[in-house]
Amino acid sequence: MSKVTELAQRLESLHIKGMYGQDFYWTWDKSADELEAVFAVADALRDLRERNISTRIFDSGLGISLFRDNSTRTRFSFASACNLLGLEVQDLDEKKSQIAHGETVRETANMVSFMADVIGIRDDMFIGEGHKYQQTFMEAVREGHRDGILEQRPTLVNLQCDVDHPTQCMADLLHVIHHFGGAENLKGKKVAMTWAYSPSYGKPLSVPQGVAGLFTRFGMDVVLAHPDGYDIMPEVEAVAAGNASASGGSFRKCASMEEAFQDADIVYPKSWAPYAAMEERTRLYGKGDQKGIDALEQRLLAQNALHKDWTCSEEMMKRTRDGKALYLHCLPADISGVSCPEGEVDGSVFDRYLVPLYKQASYKPYIIAAMIVLAQVRDPAGALRALEAAGAKRKAF
Amino acid sequence: MSKVTELAQRLESLHIKGMYGQDFYWTWDKSADELEAVFAVADALRDLRERNISTRIFDSGLGISLFRDNSTRTRFSFASACNLLGLEVQDLDEKKSQIAHGETVRETANMVSFMADVIGIRDDMFIGEGHKYQQTFMEAVREGHRDGILEQRPTLVNLQCDVDHPTQCMADLLHVIHHFGGAENLKGKKVAMTWAYSPSYGKPLSVPQGVAGLFTRFGMDVVLAHPDGYDIMPEVEAVAAGNASASGGSFRKCASMEEAFQDADIVYPKSWAPYAAMEERTRLYGKGDQKGIDALEQRLLAQNALHKDWTCSEEMMKRTRDGKALYLHCLPADISGVSCPEGEVDGSVFDRYLVPLYKQASYKPYIIAAMIVLAQVRDPAGALRALEAAGAKRKAF
Amino acid sequence: MSKVTELAQRLESLHIKGMYGQDFYWTWDKSADELEAVFAVADALRDLRERNISTRIFDSGLGISLFRDNSTRTRFSFASACNLLGLEVQDLDEKKSQIAHGETVRETANMVSFMADVIGIRDDMFIGEGHKYQQTFMEAVREGHRDGILEQRPTLVNLQCDVDHPTQCMADLLHVIHHFGGAENLKGKKVAMTWAYSPSYGKPLSVPQGVAGLFTRFGMDVVLAHPDGYDIMPEVEAVAAGNASASGGSFRKCASMEEAFQDADIVYPKSWAPYAAMEERTRLYGKGDQKGIDALEQRLLAQNALHKDWTCSEEMMKRTRDGKALYLHCLPADISGVSCPEGEVDGSVFDRYLVPLYKQASYKPYIIAAMIVLAQVRDPAGALRALEAAGAKRKAF
Repeated sequence: MSKVTELAQRLESLHIKGMYGQDFYWTWDKSADELEAVFAVADALRDLRERNISTRIFDSGLGISLFRDNSTRTRFSFASACNLLGLEVQDLDEKKSQIAHGETVRETANMVSFMADVIGIRDDMFIGEGHKYQQTFMEAVREGHRDGILEQRPTLVNLQCDVDHPTQCMADLLHVIHHFGGAENLKGKKVAMTWAYSPSYGKPLSVPQGVAGLFTRFGMDVVLAHPDGYDIMPEVEAVAAGNASASGGSFRKCASMEEAFQDADIVYPKSWAPYAAMEERTRLYGKGDQKGIDALEQRLLAQNALHKDWTCSEEMMKRTRDGKALYLHCLPADISGVSCPEGEVDGSVFDRYLVPLYKQASYKPYIIAAMIVLAQVRDPAGALRALEAAGAKRKAF
Repeated sequence: MSKVTELAQRLESLHIKGMYGQDFYWTWDKSADELEAVFAVADALRDLRERNISTRIFDSGLGISLFRDNSTRTRFSFASACNLLGLEVQDLDEKKSQIAHGETVRETANMVSFMADVIGIRDDMFIGEGHKYQQTFMEAVREGHRDGILEQRPTLVNLQCDVDHPTQCMADLLHVIHHFGGAENLKGKKVAMTWAYSPSYGKPLSVPQGVAGLFTRFGMDVVLAHPDGYDIMPEVEAVAAGNASASGGSFRKCASMEEAFQDADIVYPKSWAPYAAMEERTRLYGKGDQKGIDALEQRLLAQNALHKDWTCSEEMMKRTRDGKALYLHCLPADISGVSCPEGEVDGSVFDRYLVPLYKQASYKPYIIAAMIVLAQVRDPAGALRALEAAGAKRKAF
Repeated sequence: MSKVTELAQRLESLHIKGMYGQDFYWTWDKSADELEAVFAVADALRDLRERNISTRIFDSGLGISLFRDNSTRTRFSFASACNLLGLEVQDLDEKKSQIAHGETVRETANMVSFMADVIGIRDDMFIGEGHKYQQTFMEAVREGHRDGILEQRPTLVNLQCDVDHPTQCMADLLHVIHHFGGAENLKGKKVAMTWAYSPSYGKPLSVPQGVAGLFTRFGMDVVLAHPDGYDIMPEVEAVAAGNASASGGSFRKCASMEEAFQDADIVYPKSWAPYAAMEERTRLYGKGDQKGIDALEQRLLAQNALHKDWTCSEEMMKRTRDGKALYLHCLPADISGVSCPEGEVDGSVFDRYLVPLYKQASYKPYIIAAMIVLAQVRDPAGALRALEAAGAKRKAF
């Protein structure tokens, strides 16, 4: 039995009817079965591509990408996923600093979506705004479809918002699953999601929040560690705590990187901005108070500089399980002595994990494609079987 | 009999042989049969897409878009049309302020067209320039094809020039046709194409000109209303008058929005710049006289501000037929109290027409695609029948 | 026997097994058979397209273009080639002035290549950097493929580096081959690759170097002429000399345009910067010494201005074989009295050669596509036969 057949069988045993026609905002909106389905479809699509079997399910159609922030990696991951399924990407560029008004969003959403099957939005700049923007956009196209303006209802793939970064964290987790030989082996594994020093300030909270909200669903012991003042959104902490208790794992916080790394199986050290500061920044931007923004930036940089010892050094790594925890990062990392004098991680640590880090990233296009398939195809298991049976070559010769 | 079969039959009864291999500059270059053919093909393509039937007639090939002005809507409409037919869009970015020289245009035209089946150009900035630019570009590729440089002769779709905006006005009219249940029901309908106040200045004249030149062909009573000094091109007024007398309708001008709206069945209130001022602007740009341009802008803004009462208010709408005229706009509109303090239309009026406005816009990709099909396919009726018979799925599962 | 069958037979007689899976950096890396194979596949692809036969060998997949300099022509040639084969282009924009570090290149290379079958890089700004950058990039994706990060190993097409411009010079040569009725007719033809005055400074050396390195392989008498101080890279001169002696042609240098043009069959007059100055510029950029760069620019412009008599005038053309040498240029040219007061070529000369110049350029997309096919397809002759036999229409109707 081929891997795809196996995965299709597994898919058929899951309760995923609710995914059809739905958007993907946050992982915690989805059931355990639904998350497993994303992993299964991602693995199946990758297997088909490795075997040079076409996975085009669209003969034409657009994938609209909307990045309200610069992006290379996510842009290419989205473009790759769309291409894999037969959709052509069209980028919608909006000024990144502009907090759009509902009316404008509604109109733009419809005007760009006449042939859109997928909408990928990255909007992580302003706490309290990104998710709302995505909702407004998708509500508009849902109404547009209902009112006969759009022939099809496009699917949202959240490419990062102020709350969650589901395509990143799902790719991270699929990498972890394969590393440990299956989701069933994750129970009891210790995960250190820790803050780390970076000379920049204001990085989004969506990765630590996404990890807290997702990794806690697999029975792992998730420790969220950060210096005082670098809290994440309390709503997400509550989600993580609930997940942990439901999955038989744990979720706790601590204020020491050393403690978090101690005997950890997985470490995810990265910089982020304090939630409260990001809320303040959103208010300042809303008022157009550039002076206030500059002052906030100075304050945050000074606050950051107090915590240069939060870094994933060789010494820190030695504390982990056999000194060999799986090191994760969403990339790009601030590497000490390479991209900056002092940063999130030692160059020697980063270099040692280069291959697994790139492998981790390589799951993202497949995760995005799987999210699209599950929202757009009524019988995904049947579709996978049909693609394999047809065996159309991706490269003809 | 399916809708597509019906439309294909209708197509076969029309004299449209002359469309094959031709460009689409202005609607008044085309016969009544040719315009009807565009509507028929647009409706057929939409019907096929609604039924998930592939309308790819190109296996590969490029659609080149050239926007000499910022654009989101038209860009996405063109990209959607190309994608619908199997063409990939490549954008050619040129500095928007540059009035290009013939030699350069000739060279660029050939260099970007090696695999181009369609060229979409929007060049509406300078009176007396946009249309000439499109002609120079297309003459160059015609020669390139003749001389064996290009394997195929690409088709022009005028995405807006200084004279006409045919994809917009054809989409507007198709919307009107469906709203009134058929082109045969348009005879005697009163259309108010009126100027309206906007805090910006210098909007193109191509929409009012395009409406005057197109809507007069269907036996309607078209009233062009604007304050003193906001004339459109006299050549287009002459075209409109000729059309009206040929179609059994009428074309007249007046200087009162109230009068134009009185008992109107259709209203199209929008801002535009005075023709004479646009001619002056072109001259100033040609000389690189920035001071002169700034002074002109100030003068035009002051002139504009005298006519804030030209707005599509609730009171104004009450004058129309049963207070329920079909409100048209090419979007985006300047909405009073929403996008500006005082603008072209009241927020409450705009909101009431939101669904029809978006529907109006939704015809544009199909209109563009229909123009491409009619210029590129020798037997469009046969092609539509063949696409329906093949029934290849656009989305496979 | 069709042209494609003939070309496929010829291909089968060539030793080109080594091309599969390889990159295309410099023409002098390739054997005579390998170069001939590129021409044969280019001609076959063009023939198929002229006969409306689809040449899609990819059902999906990306072509990544990376231009570290502005580009319209090369961008469209690459996009056309990718489209012809079924690949979708995604542009990776990097700041043009930034000399990237190895680590960053390695990461970016993998992050954008998950679905990439082809990488097209143009990096001609800095002597000693462009080729290195391409190598670093391709080493990274080769490792990525080896390590299971990338499902496929993408192929490099060098779209211009500091050393060679193979897609340009191969297109130039294919044009020359067709002009003279076959490669066998090139023996003994005199080629004048000469410097010419342009009011700009700092144009890349890759074209004269590429011509010197390529045209010398066909038994031609290649003369490289330039004013004192405008030397090209000595390594490339050595390559040219070696080629000439192996092919039974000649390679010599002279300091007189008149002498080079005397009885020439082919002339290629164009501006370039002195090699030594370009090395100095690279050093200054590396140090961020803007003052030094400005001073260098002034010095080079003054040096340029001494040689305004190096121009392809009507008088100069009269010296060539029967006054009718084939005039080549990579475009855009600096045309005296058109794009600048005094430039590389007289307007009347340029105009007379307009059609052959555009024809010359029209080979580039096919050359690029041929390079891709030969690197990606194990049996290119079989693939060409199969495409012709299948006869799938590029445009269905």
